[in-house]
Amino acid sequence: MTSRRTDLRVGMVGYAFMGAAHSQAWRTVNHFFDLPSRVRMTAICGRNAGAVEAAAAKLGWESATTDWRELIARDDIDVIDICTPGDSHAEIAIAALRAGKHVLCEKPLANTVEEAQAMVAVLEGSGATAMCGFNYRRVPAAALMRQMVADGRVGTIRHVRATYLQDWIADPQFPLVWRLQREKAGSGALGDIGAHIIDLTQHVTGRLIEGVSAITETFVKQRPGGTVTVDDAALFVARLDGGALATYEASRFATGRKNALRIEINGSLGSLVFDLERLNELQFYDASLPAAEQGFSRILVTEPEHPYMSAWWPPGHTIGYEHSFTHQARDFVRAIHDGTDPSPSFREALGVQLVLDAVQRSAESGTYVEVK
Amino acid sequence: MTSRRTDLRVGMVGYAFMGAAHSQAWRTVNHFFDLPSRVRMTAICGRNAGAVEAAAAKLGWESATTDWRELIARDDIDVIDICTPGDSHAEIAIAALRAGKHVLCEKPLANTVEEAQAMVAVLEGSGATAMCGFNYRRVPAAALMRQMVADGRVGTIRHVRATYLQDWIADPQFPLVWRLQREKAGSGALGDIGAHIIDLTQHVTGRLIEGVSAITETFVKQRPGGTVTVDDAALFVARLDGGALATYEASRFATGRKNALRIEINGSLGSLVFDLERLNELQFYDASLPAAEQGFSRILVTEPEHPYMSAWWPPGHTIGYEHSFTHQARDFVRAIHDGTDPSPSFREALGVQLVLDAVQRSAESGTYVEVK
Amino acid sequence: MTSRRTDLRVGMVGYAFMGAAHSQAWRTVNHFFDLPSRVRMTAICGRNAGAVEAAAAKLGWESATTDWRELIARDDIDVIDICTPGDSHAEIAIAALRAGKHVLCEKPLANTVEEAQAMVAVLEGSGATAMCGFNYRRVPAAALMRQMVADGRVGTIRHVRATYLQDWIADPQFPLVWRLQREKAGSGALGDIGAHIIDLTQHVTGRLIEGVSAITETFVKQRPGGTVTVDDAALFVARLDGGALATYEASRFATGRKNALRIEINGSLGSLVFDLERLNELQFYDASLPAAEQGFSRILVTEPEHPYMSAWWPPGHTIGYEHSFTHQARDFVRAIHDGTDPSPSFREALGVQLVLDAVQRSAESGTYVEVK
Amino acid sequence: MTSRRTDLRVGMVGYAFMGAAHSQAWRTVNHFFDLPSRVRMTAICGRNAGAVEAAAAKLGWESATTDWRELIARDDIDVIDICTPGDSHAEIAIAALRAGKHVLCEKPLANTVEEAQAMVAVLEGSGATAMCGFNYRRVPAAALMRQMVADGRVGTIRHVRATYLQDWIADPQFPLVWRLQREKAGSGALGDIGAHIIDLTQHVTGRLIEGVSAITETFVKQRPGGTVTVDDAALFVARLDGGALATYEASRFATGRKNALRIEINGSLGSLVFDLERLNELQFYDASLPAAEQGFSRILVTEPEHPYMSAWWPPGHTIGYEHSFTHQARDFVRAIHDGTDPSPSFREALGVQLVLDAVQRSAESGTYVEVK
Repeated sequence: MTSRRTDLRVGMVGYAFMGAAHSQAWRTVNHFFDLPSRVRMTAICGRNAGAVEAAAAKLGWESATTDWRELIARDDIDVIDICTPGDSHAEIAIAALRAGKHVLCEKPLANTVEEAQAMVAVLEGSGATAMCGFNYRRVPAAALMRQMVADGRVGTIRHVRATYLQDWIADPQFPLVWRLQREKAGSGALGDIGAHIIDLTQHVTGRLIEGVSAITETFVKQRPGGTVTVDDAALFVARLDGGALATYEASRFATGRKNALRIEINGSLGSLVFDLERLNELQFYDASLPAAEQGFSRILVTEPEHPYMSAWWPPGHTIGYEHSFTHQARDFVRAIHDGTDPSPSFREALGVQLVLDAVQRSAESGTYVEVK
Repeated sequence: MTSRRTDLRVGMVGYAFMGAAHSQAWRTVNHFFDLPSRVRMTAICGRNAGAVEAAAAKLGWESATTDWRELIARDDIDVIDICTPGDSHAEIAIAALRAGKHVLCEKPLANTVEEAQAMVAVLEGSGATAMCGFNYRRVPAAALMRQMVADGRVGTIRHVRATYLQDWIADPQFPLVWRLQREKAGSGALGDIGAHIIDLTQHVTGRLIEGVSAITETFVKQRPGGTVTVDDAALFVARLDGGALATYEASRFATGRKNALRIEINGSLGSLVFDLERLNELQFYDASLPAAEQGFSRILVTEPEHPYMSAWWPPGHTIGYEHSFTHQARDFVRAIHDGTDPSPSFREALGVQLVLDAVQRSAESGTYVEVK
Repeated sequence: MTSRRTDLRVGMVGYAFMGAAHSQAWRTVNHFFDLPSRVRMTAICGRNAGAVEAAAAKLGWESATTDWRELIARDDIDVIDICTPGDSHAEIAIAALRAGKHVLCEKPLANTVEEAQAMVAVLEGSGATAMCGFNYRRVPAAALMRQMVADGRVGTIRHVRATYLQDWIADPQFPLVWRLQREKAGSGALGDIGAHIIDLTQHVTGRLIEGVSAITETFVKQRPGGTVTVDDAALFVARLDGGALATYEASRFATGRKNALRIEINGSLGSLVFDLERLNELQFYDASLPAAEQGFSRILVTEPEHPYMSAWWPPGHTIGYEHSFTHQARDFVRAIHDGTDPSPSFREALGVQLVLDAVQRSAESGTYVEVK
Repeated sequence: MTSRRTDLRVGMVGYAFMGAAHSQAWRTVNHFFDLPSRVRMTAICGRNAGAVEAAAAKLGWESATTDWRELIARDDIDVIDICTPGDSHAEIAIAALRAGKHVLCEKPLANTVEEAQAMVAVLEGSGATAMCGFNYRRVPAAALMRQMVADGRVGTIRHVRATYLQDWIADPQFPLVWRLQREKAGSGALGDIGAHIIDLTQHVTGRLIEGVSAITETFVKQRPGGTVTVDDAALFVARLDGGALATYEASRFATGRKNALRIEINGSLGSLVFDLERLNELQFYDASLPAAEQGFSRILVTEPEHPYMSAWWPPGHTIGYEHSFTHQARDFVRAIHDGTDPSPSFREALGVQLVLDAVQRSAESGTYVEVK
């Protein structure tokens, strides 16, 4: 690293699953990508003093604090990285933006449309750089999928089918964690994993969801620890602008499906399939090939020609889940340096929030609801 | 063949795709299964004299006629096998039943609920044996799927996801064939292939669809030959009795998907996946295995322990699409001999018709519609 | 069928597994392919009078006999179809050829090189049409594989890897059947299934095996019924003319592999993979595509553009194991009518025999042995 | 990190592909695993001053030097990590061991049996801890494979088939890099990737290769830059102690296969399959299940019950290639602390060298060669 690079000093709030993933990204990004700034892991924040000290040591942060307001007030922090449950996103992000910090906020952007709108409003007058953490956009195979759609390789999109399936609460004895409480999480499978497929399909297709017909369900209402107040599963059919039809399904009761985010796109000229459980692969059907040679191909997305991959290993040497966060960090660091609006912007993330809201209203009313 | 077996004399109406498949089944069934009757391919019927003569020769029928009423009136015919488009099913079947014939009727049972109800009404007073041709029930892997659900191997069903995807009209220049005309076909992808996944999911789960929220679309409305008057694609979410949630999608615009009938079931104890493009396989996830050994297994459904398979080849030697019709013939011949009600009965097929009707009403109204 | 077609009257010797497969082919071939002759299943022959009578009834033959010499002597037989164990192939085939019959002989052609040479010698002066039953050449995906190699789609071949794996005698308590006795079967896995991959790789690549280094083993030497006198598994590395290197493995002890004939070819421009357990598919890697889009594609070999498939069902509707025999019957009937030399000819099958012999000599001597 | 942990100070020689992979491992290991020592990346060594300075900055090392002897002489270095080509392994490792350093040496251990023997001899009197970098042993799915074999889940092993296929020099215009020169690399595909499958199969089965029959080839002998003096591909059949038969193939000419290390084991009770291109998965066939339910299952090796995985992400969240090096670092750090002999030891790596030597002698002599 040359001395001409400036330091970019990060303060992170939260240190659970997302905190660990973000930490690995901040630690790694400068060692694989040439960036205009050098990331420093300056401070980590959490409510429990002992736990946050231990997390600082384990995750490699220079200091720890229990007060996020103090963190935001520090002069030696450039970026606030929000890894807390959704109920605190708006308050922390707005305070950070007002203090002149750049903000990386985990998804979903907020627990309600109103909060998300407030975040967008504060950001847009602030001059700061802000981004929402829909990290799967930066899995190389998903980025390649978007690029191929943009390049016209599938033609006019007719169908999208998206599932995000997990099974970690299929056992009725699994306890009531915060992700199962509406006041903390906003919604259940819908906001947690459904938000990912809403964002990712809109991103890779370049098309927005116009309206939805949804059903949701809570299969197990009482668990050790109390009452589940969010959905266990959310399913909907949708119309996209441009005329495509889509199915969406998010569930935490799909036995055997561990992290099965799967997106298929069918267009007039071809099809594409992405599966997060095999995230180094993209399937492509090219209907312009000779009839006898058409078939779904399995592209191993490990070539230097593929998005982000020239930074890593030789062809055939695969990457994992956490790399999507490193790519996110790379692009966020560049956007801050360049003063450009990163994607997913808070406005795009608000768009996801509007879809989540439409899904909930559709499920309640039993009618087709337009997104707006 | 011993002389003690009686002949079962079949008259078939229609000689296109389904006619060829049924002919191969009638020709083959006695050579692989021990049956109480010997099938005779007595007569084939079609409107065009020259074409039906050629079909009789090609498909191996003893005689040909152009008048289905004459066929039904013959004394030397025991079974009427209806392989015509849906608009003539009710008329032919009702006449055949009134003439004392047994009836095998291709799916969907009829083009409207009213026709299907009339068929059931006539049948139920007749003493005849009648069956609807949802042949995929008798793909061994699908039959095994049903058996494993019935044996409790997946526990309480939480999710069903079913697609039947084809791409044969994705090209806007594909002409207006009868399957694209409402007066002939009743509906488009919905009744043709959507009916299969409605029937098959209800059959394998033992659960009925209670209500649906649907969208349908005709992507290409004008084709060489005229105006398309049916849906190109139909998508819906559904609730099943017993509490499961389901997604369904039928489309003829899914580029690269040729005959992709795929059903996944997630239950509290396991999951099952069937894919018609790999019809000799069934995937099973057994959540009762040790945690470190759980995974989706690919059962090659070619063992003598698997439904229908002891009649065919040694393990690992696969069968094809047409074998489902041979198995259907086998079970129908046995039901006639035994005087039992075969499955899918006309009443079950009427149930499918009620779902198709609910889907169309839901798509038109933009609301959740109960099946009844 | 028009009256101008002549009848082709078949007499089949043997009625076990291969007899059933051939019967289904003879019964079916005229109903899916337009042929210059109409096949008649005139007579079946076996040593046990009761059993052969039952087989005639079950498999659909017009008459039965217990004496193959009598069968060959009949005037009303045009073709002798030999489905017996390998030890009787040479005697029956030579007698049939001398009697002016056409001959279809199951593989391997004989149990020894000497027998095979004698068969070729008799044939070549006879004017008869003769073919050896390496049926897998006529699985459409395998036929497509050959065609693509011939069309230069993989360039210069560098590697071939071929396995034929089964597991039906992995249990030491499986009894001593004829296939485990040298005097009946000639060899074990080597001649039974190894012969298939030797023939198929030579056929699809157009290259002959020049030399081999082999090991063989009999894992279980004593079984209920007596001593196993053939190999349980045979493995060898080989050089092909043109410079490619190859690995071959045939085993009946590969637990979980039921009928796993798998061939992969790597060439300078691409690769191809065939797997008999998924016989409707062919994988193709096209190294001439843009780097970012290369991948192994899964061609579903069910299009009318694919070998033999226009005779069967619409795209995506798969075929099974037995269809390869129907295709074999089709091509044999045509060759008889046209007076052309069918492939695999007896001479080609003798070539396979020479490789089998080289493998056995290499395994015995522990040295690289040239095929000659 | 608590102050009670001692520092373990690493000096690394080499900074190319392996240097980058090892750096990421040293940087990461303490943040995911609780270890008795804290790794410090003290110094990096390479011959070119400018390049090694840049590498130090990029890869995150505290200092850089151009003289490996100086590095070894430093008091503040505990571990020498050798990431150079094979021709320098012996000299550096022996010097390091004599200087009292612990040694991690990339594979293959050396370019000749003699060098490897010398390394073992020096080590065994030294009291130091030394390990050879066969990193794939520590891919969790491979580690699980070994564990399941050891637990008797496949019974008596009958077959092993191992391939390591790449295609990076299939283009004849690819230049003459050091890996294509015998004096640098010792051998070609054989020592580079063949060594991995020799080691990994011996490790997971617990069985040693007893003898081999091999062929090798250099397909393209002249390249830009000079003459290729190593093999492009090496294939052999082998006998393992315990009676299993095996096939091995290593090639850099397998078009479309990028990093295709694939191992299949067939035993009397089950089978296992590992494929490095899908390194988060292990396939298992359990022949003790009911016959109708047997099949190859795809175990997603991301559960906390799986080796190494509790340190990483929730189930279904996959890891990549580089994690195997982090696991290697973890186990090496522990072994140093505990004073235990790590695996693969230099003696085990010498065993691999003996097999490589036998393969070369067999290829040259055209005979079966025993390993000794």
